[in-house]
Amino acid sequence: MNIKKLGLLLLLPLSVTAQEASLTTYVKPIIGTAKMGHTFPGATVPFGAVQLSPDTDTIPYEVGGKYNGDVYKYCAGYQYADSTIVGFSHTHFSGTGHSDLGDFLIMPTVGKLQMNPGTAQHPENGYRSRFSHDNEVAEANYYRVKLDEPQVLAELTASTRVGFHRYTFPASTDAHIIFDLMAGIYNYDDKNVWTVVKVINDTLVTGYRQTNGWARTRTVYFAMTFSKPFKNYGTQHNDKTQAYKGFWRKFDQDHHFPDIAGKKIRMHFDFDTKANEQVQVKFALSPVSMKNALENMQAEIPHWDFDRTKQEGQALWEKELRKIVVDLPSKADYINFYTAMYHAALMPTVYMDVNGEYKGLDQEVHQASDFTNYTSFSLWDTFRAFHPYLNLINPTRNADMVASMMKHYDQNVLHMLPIWSHYANDNWCMSGYHSVSVIAEAILKGVYKGDAMAALNACVQTANTRDYEGIGAYIDKGYIPDEVSGTSVSNTLEYAYDDWCIAQLAKKLGKTGVYETFLQRSTHWKNMYDKSIGFMRPRLADGSFRKKFDVLKTDGEGFIEGNAWNFSLYVPHDPEGMMENMGGKKRLSRYLDSLFTMHLPDEFFAHTEDITRDGIIGNYVHGNEPAHHVAYLYNSTGEPWKTQEKVRMILKNQYHNGADGLGGNDDCGQMSAWFIFSSLGFYPVSPASNEYWLGSPAVNHAVLNLENGKQLVIKAENQSDKNVYVKRVLLNGQLVKNNRLKHEDLIKGGELVFYMSPRKL
Amino acid sequence: MNIKKLGLLLLLPLSVTAQEASLTTYVKPIIGTAKMGHTFPGATVPFGAVQLSPDTDTIPYEVGGKYNGDVYKYCAGYQYADSTIVGFSHTHFSGTGHSDLGDFLIMPTVGKLQMNPGTAQHPENGYRSRFSHDNEVAEANYYRVKLDEPQVLAELTASTRVGFHRYTFPASTDAHIIFDLMAGIYNYDDKNVWTVVKVINDTLVTGYRQTNGWARTRTVYFAMTFSKPFKNYGTQHNDKTQAYKGFWRKFDQDHHFPDIAGKKIRMHFDFDTKANEQVQVKFALSPVSMKNALENMQAEIPHWDFDRTKQEGQALWEKELRKIVVDLPSKADYINFYTAMYHAALMPTVYMDVNGEYKGLDQEVHQASDFTNYTSFSLWDTFRAFHPYLNLINPTRNADMVASMMKHYDQNVLHMLPIWSHYANDNWCMSGYHSVSVIAEAILKGVYKGDAMAALNACVQTANTRDYEGIGAYIDKGYIPDEVSGTSVSNTLEYAYDDWCIAQLAKKLGKTGVYETFLQRSTHWKNMYDKSIGFMRPRLADGSFRKKFDVLKTDGEGFIEGNAWNFSLYVPHDPEGMMENMGGKKRLSRYLDSLFTMHLPDEFFAHTEDITRDGIIGNYVHGNEPAHHVAYLYNSTGEPWKTQEKVRMILKNQYHNGADGLGGNDDCGQMSAWFIFSSLGFYPVSPASNEYWLGSPAVNHAVLNLENGKQLVIKAENQSDKNVYVKRVLLNGQLVKNNRLKHEDLIKGGELVFYMSPRKL
Repeated sequence: MNIKKLGLLLLLPLSVTAQEASLTTYVKPIIGTAKMGHTFPGATVPFGAVQLSPDTDTIPYEVGGKYNGDVYKYCAGYQYADSTIVGFSHTHFSGTGHSDLGDFLIMPTVGKLQMNPGTAQHPENGYRSRFSHDNEVAEANYYRVKLDEPQVLAELTASTRVGFHRYTFPASTDAHIIFDLMAGIYNYDDKNVWTVVKVINDTLVTGYRQTNGWARTRTVYFAMTFSKPFKNYGTQHNDKTQAYKGFWRKFDQDHHFPDIAGKKIRMHFDFDTKANEQVQVKFALSPVSMKNALENMQAEIPHWDFDRTKQEGQALWEKELRKIVVDLPSKADYINFYTAMYHAALMPTVYMDVNGEYKGLDQEVHQASDFTNYTSFSLWDTFRAFHPYLNLINPTRNADMVASMMKHYDQNVLHMLPIWSHYANDNWCMSGYHSVSVIAEAILKGVYKGDAMAALNACVQTANTRDYEGIGAYIDKGYIPDEVSGTSVSNTLEYAYDDWCIAQLAKKLGKTGVYETFLQRSTHWKNMYDKSIGFMRPRLADGSFRKKFDVLKTDGEGFIEGNAWNFSLYVPHDPEGMMENMGGKKRLSRYLDSLFTMHLPDEFFAHTEDITRDGIIGNYVHGNEPAHHVAYLYNSTGEPWKTQEKVRMILKNQYHNGADGLGGNDDCGQMSAWFIFSSLGFYPVSPASNEYWLGSPAVNHAVLNLENGKQLVIKAENQSDKNVYVKRVLLNGQLVKNNRLKHEDLIKGGELVFYMSPRKL
Repeated sequence: MNIKKLGLLLLLPLSVTAQEASLTTYVKPIIGTAKMGHTFPGATVPFGAVQLSPDTDTIPYEVGGKYNGDVYKYCAGYQYADSTIVGFSHTHFSGTGHSDLGDFLIMPTVGKLQMNPGTAQHPENGYRSRFSHDNEVAEANYYRVKLDEPQVLAELTASTRVGFHRYTFPASTDAHIIFDLMAGIYNYDDKNVWTVVKVINDTLVTGYRQTNGWARTRTVYFAMTFSKPFKNYGTQHNDKTQAYKGFWRKFDQDHHFPDIAGKKIRMHFDFDTKANEQVQVKFALSPVSMKNALENMQAEIPHWDFDRTKQEGQALWEKELRKIVVDLPSKADYINFYTAMYHAALMPTVYMDVNGEYKGLDQEVHQASDFTNYTSFSLWDTFRAFHPYLNLINPTRNADMVASMMKHYDQNVLHMLPIWSHYANDNWCMSGYHSVSVIAEAILKGVYKGDAMAALNACVQTANTRDYEGIGAYIDKGYIPDEVSGTSVSNTLEYAYDDWCIAQLAKKLGKTGVYETFLQRSTHWKNMYDKSIGFMRPRLADGSFRKKFDVLKTDGEGFIEGNAWNFSLYVPHDPEGMMENMGGKKRLSRYLDSLFTMHLPDEFFAHTEDITRDGIIGNYVHGNEPAHHVAYLYNSTGEPWKTQEKVRMILKNQYHNGADGLGGNDDCGQMSAWFIFSSLGFYPVSPASNEYWLGSPAVNHAVLNLENGKQLVIKAENQSDKNVYVKRVLLNGQLVKNNRLKHEDLIKGGELVFYMSPRKL
């Protein structure tokens, strides 16, 4: 940490208790690494391009040409229940339900050289190693594990674009660092389209890996340096091994050493080590070129001081976490809260070199002149609470993310905003065109200051892509017929919300025609509602509702990752209209009560992906996104106490300190953003509305250090596990009516005081 | 042609006869397209990056995992004997004996859409077409053929970086332009590592093709525009076809239309055509990016005037050819001469975008600030006469080529100058490190004005790459033992010559130590000479000569593409020493006489690649390079008349106007450069010596318009088919002694007069 940064930190408001001296210590990256959380425990800085993390398996996506279900749990490379580590790779998604990445796996070994990874059952047959959680530490930007077999202590830290490895070896004349370019997450034969490695000298190696996976055409460039010259090195290339004694300008006609290329390359670098000798590796990434990777390394970590990099990264985390300084009842609560803030600052990731170059969706190199380019937008998840959270606490980053989405649009021959984009690709995952929600919200909240008319145009173009996922039918008929799409109902509902966002943006910009068109489209959700049964329901092209229909089933019923019970409540932009449609307050209240209390038989759970049984409360599925606003809907039925009760129950029930502390995929911070908002006492039910709906704060006290220099202080007077009910709420002394807060009021700063009570009110 | 260029042209000396008004009309690109010439008949400008030419087959390099010998004749894609054309692709080598390229094949068709190429026997089963040479015209920068089946007239022309197609269709509602990204020269499964195509609108398509072939990692980017919007388009991707009606923002979840990527992609673009309607295609290439390809197109051909591009290119050819304005006995001679000049101006090719960007050997994008970057250096061939020819007639280009080689060195992790480099790769083809000859010569002749010390250092580094092809043993023992290399003798001989070049350069730069070291190394050829038999001969590590040895055989006898008879004469830097070693003048004279007259039984010819039977005179192999200096060696034996006789005989015998007019691979202009030099009456026996050895001019008169503004006028008084003997030679009135000319004297300009006679003198 340099003096400048230290200075900045000291300027931060210090209205914190002693307990809060280092908020970073509350971060437990291990939370969510068991079961379905799909988080990774490794080292990264906030929104860092490098996520340097252990992989406990790198099993293939397919076995014998068929999908291998086991791959799913390795979305982030690590499963807490595993007892072996294959190695440490440099790129990971956090909390996704499909995957890619796991680039450039490195593993220290000692003794007989083994170039294959071995198996979980027999790690001794490969380069992998057994390990124990007793010998493992995972902190923000620091990961440490003692590897059993090589008896090597592995430590990891990172800057934005550089991973830093520190391996403490035993005495050996046969120590190795394995570099596996075949390893990867969601791997399969032919996923490696091409790899290149250049051994430039006995401490510097550069190259790249080009894959055809979830991202169709993805290339990651690297530069790797060793703190100590290797004595020998070699390859396994297409299963043929080749060893090179020493190094300098070795030439091999067949292998073109030291410059090799192919699809199936593993390498080893050999060292003599004294007892406890540390061999360090710096590994920089670039989306653009090897030389940029090297430049990134030289710019970010021009030294070999591992502890300095660790501390600099942890200082970045501290700065990030201090944006909300809370007072909470217990240490476990602190851990939940700051780990949630940690998880909500991992993705999207910086996708740009220190010189401003990045690869665009058009596969061209671009120069970012006035923004930081980000990638990995899991928008179906993150438009709900994650981007609203950034708008509140991290608006500059969110503005840059919107700028990145706009560049994506500009570079897209399809003229569409991102759906689920990563590494200069769109993988088209999930439904809706929720970029428009993020963009409209960021403009309506004054966060994105770029060309608003261009943004509106991009939203409209995207929403008019007739060939995309039933949009044509949706426009023509007002709903997507069951014949057209297997997720016709949820698509219609999501488009309707997105269209409402476009309408709001158009209204702000005075584009009345666009406003009217999209406001009308935003009512299309009504066309999906079958009054006869009181649920949203697939409808055929002839207008009739589909006969065969199961309101509990998730698959094949017209919804994406949710059943009719959950999805029928998905009208975030018009919850009053939805309630009216359903038959009024009482009817909705009963519906919600049933949802939270009914028993969902196992048969209906079997096909619900992305969540554990723990992620479900009754038939309310918190472990996946479609119902994330649902607990707040009691505000409409005149029973806010039920919202307060439910929210507190979910906060307690769905988040805890264990490795299995998340009930479903964290989904790139969305689950965590829900936790943060709800802990603070409010939630963006309809993100682009600029309104938050009140819940029940779980914090005693919180200071939001806003980017505009203001502070918003939240006090929950008398709050406790029993006092979950809100008597009244004052914002800067004014009574909050309607249980809603306005974004523009909150960012003015001041005091938001909740008066808590044990009584349902 | 713009006024500026026209002006320049008018300033050129016009001491030409009426017959010479357009030298370009003498160019017959069809010469060398039959049998082993391996030239291509298509359209290109001098040293152009695009070589747009018909491919008469694109057969695979392997069949059933085994080398397919038939592929060899398709090194340039076209064989004159064939009766079908598969299509027109954009990149071709000229005259090579191994291949790659054939990128981006385009073919017009009419009627039923067929996406496979079909076979030579059954073109009707695919998109290929029968054609007749009667309906074919090949000129410099213009190719035309009437395709029989679709009855489409195809015309091709080009600028440096853009191919221009003009297709005249019959009336049809079913006209197509096929775009095959799977086609290629020396193709095989998996050669396409990755291809991307972006259909940006209904007239613009961009993309790239990445291959793993002779160049290990080669990517060529393109931008293609149609003069008329296509009505529909579609793909065949991994054998699955997909058609799209109309165009604009068609989205297909599986195919990600209009942006597609994969390894096996073919496309079709469909048109309605009226009778004789012309559909034109401009196709730009870039080594760097799609956007650069588009920029190249916009910069070079911002219009749809095919004839203008054709004429501009032909004007460039005229300018190129006018560098030597000759008077020759017959039209056939003119055709031979100017086609040789044409063939000696095809490669290396410009490898740089109009904005100065190019891809380096390090696979990084570089900016060329003060030179034009070239690629495709077939140095084992071209160091002999081709680069000397450029030094005389095209020094600026040659200086840029040396600059390109130096960049190659700078970008090479192996710290070696190019061996056989193309498209940001070295394919390591053939033997020696002949870059050093080209570089030393260019510096010694004052042509390359870059950093000479850096150049010397690069030469020394390259020559000290101990692991490369026996260099270590060569340095240690003074020769390469037979155990170390299958071509130990020729390697030793070639290294010795190259080392002599390094010594000369070192001497010029005052680096005495380097000079002495390499001068000593340049004597290593002696270690290969077996006095007991009078031939160079493989030698074992123990110093003894290999027992089993056949002086006529080419394979397995220690030589690369030559037998002991030819290769034993390969001491170009010390022919006197060689002669002395052999036993003196008489001995060498008899040896040469035998070489030219002996009968080489067929069994010894069977394995001689790269030449036809016609390429051999006795046992002298003109169709391949190692003996190219041999006819001139009679100058040493005191029998220059034999040189004069032999040279004239070879000129007559080995070059003629037919498609089979070249007796062997043209080898990127080397065969043609031999022809040009020899026609002018002298030849660079030892390129870096700055000396030319006299032969017998076949021109009556020639004007060399030198770049320095001087003219060298060559007169061959009384020359005829009978008067091939040279009585005496005067340079600017001074008698030329020793039958040698100095480069520095020639470039001063003036008159070089040969007095010819029918008598051996």
